[in-house]
Amino acid sequence: MPRYRLIIEYDGAGYVGWQQQDNGPSVQAALQQAVKGFSGEEVRVFGAGRTDAGVHALGQAAHIDLARAWDADRVREAMNAHLRGHAIAVLAVEEAAENFDARFSAVGRHYLYRIVNRRPPLALARGQAWHVMQPLDAAAMHEAAQALIGRHDFSTFRDAQCQAKSPVKTLDAISVAREGEGVEIRVSARSFLHRQVRSIAGSLKKVGEGAWPPERMAEILKAADRRLCGPVAPPDGLYLVRVDYP
Amino acid sequence: MPRYRLIIEYDGAGYVGWQQQDNGPSVQAALQQAVKGFSGEEVRVFGAGRTDAGVHALGQAAHIDLARAWDADRVREAMNAHLRGHAIAVLAVEEAAENFDARFSAVGRHYLYRIVNRRPPLALARGQAWHVMQPLDAAAMHEAAQALIGRHDFSTFRDAQCQAKSPVKTLDAISVAREGEGVEIRVSARSFLHRQVRSIAGSLKKVGEGAWPPERMAEILKAADRRLCGPVAPPDGLYLVRVDYP
Repeated sequence: MPRYRLIIEYDGAGYVGWQQQDNGPSVQAALQQAVKGFSGEEVRVFGAGRTDAGVHALGQAAHIDLARAWDADRVREAMNAHLRGHAIAVLAVEEAAENFDARFSAVGRHYLYRIVNRRPPLALARGQAWHVMQPLDAAAMHEAAQALIGRHDFSTFRDAQCQAKSPVKTLDAISVAREGEGVEIRVSARSFLHRQVRSIAGSLKKVGEGAWPPERMAEILKAADRRLCGPVAPPDGLYLVRVDYP
Repeated sequence: MPRYRLIIEYDGAGYVGWQQQDNGPSVQAALQQAVKGFSGEEVRVFGAGRTDAGVHALGQAAHIDLARAWDADRVREAMNAHLRGHAIAVLAVEEAAENFDARFSAVGRHYLYRIVNRRPPLALARGQAWHVMQPLDAAAMHEAAQALIGRHDFSTFRDAQCQAKSPVKTLDAISVAREGEGVEIRVSARSFLHRQVRSIAGSLKKVGEGAWPPERMAEILKAADRRLCGPVAPPDGLYLVRVDYP
């Protein structure tokens, strides 16, 4: 049974999230429908990360098994043809090893959190960035963020609904940089807790606007106490950029 | 009667264009409604450029006259409050001289035409870029475009509905550059003919995909014959970036 690895872009605004649910359209269900559309097969599409409602992807990874062997490029073209009307695009398809698993084989996940920092509301980036009106000090945010690098108990930045067995994760890299009115937070780790990036972004915003001193990030991390986290940032600004495999 | 100059951003996708029309929502009407909302005054909002349906603006300019004097920042804030739900944002408002005219005082207009050049459809940039699947040679497009610089009869690149008295315009600058899968055309002139930028973009695409040699741009310009223009590029990729005043 041939296995295929997919790379997928989507605008999360119109979806209840990656995962198939009863309460509305999901990215996973749309992809499964597209596979059925061209192959007639009822497959499950396994994703590398279960993004929340409103969260976007520039390069989500997933895998599928098909009973019949197809040329990988034809799978991509056929799925995109059946995704017409959806804000979902299959960027690449390639044949994968039988033991490849989009979720469990991943060795790195890269997220971008995009803020537009200005007084006027967003017209062109509506739903695709967090609109923050208070002037943000990106250098202070960057400095504060460095305390998170390494292996830590991230309970402070973990959603109550998180199903991970342990709150201990290793953050490989985090940076905050301003370009014009945009402030971009980039984060990399092998894996993340539920809402970890949005929890970090919301806390860094407190530092950026001067409400918290930069040292506060290290303090709330050490406390391992969810109640000390800043307000969780909205999904609009979050992008799953890339998933790495060995 | 105090006059104000406005700078406006909008996503043109949901509008019949800048100009107020009977067939649907326009940017101009939404702005006029917003002025009425906070001031009670029925004003006309005069724009620097009448963008077509689906065309976007990063920095459209306009002017309004108000019977009562308001603080410029309050005008901006109040208009944005009344534009909620619209993909329109007032970026800046300042008091202007009595003889300032957003359209007739302009000495420069800058447009960006944005192409996403890849095989898969667009998910995140839907409606905000032209999706071109054939690989484009941006260097050939840039070379071809240079023939358009200067004062010329632009009849080839002029829509049949254009109301300008003369087809003669002076193009100050044009460049085509690739960055990843994006190809950006940037054009500057004091003023443009109707659909001139989209006509140029559509013709440059023919060069980029290798259907036309770069010299063809100079030839069709000289011919001053609308029938020789390439298929007009869609509005999705066009942005009015900035309007200059003395």
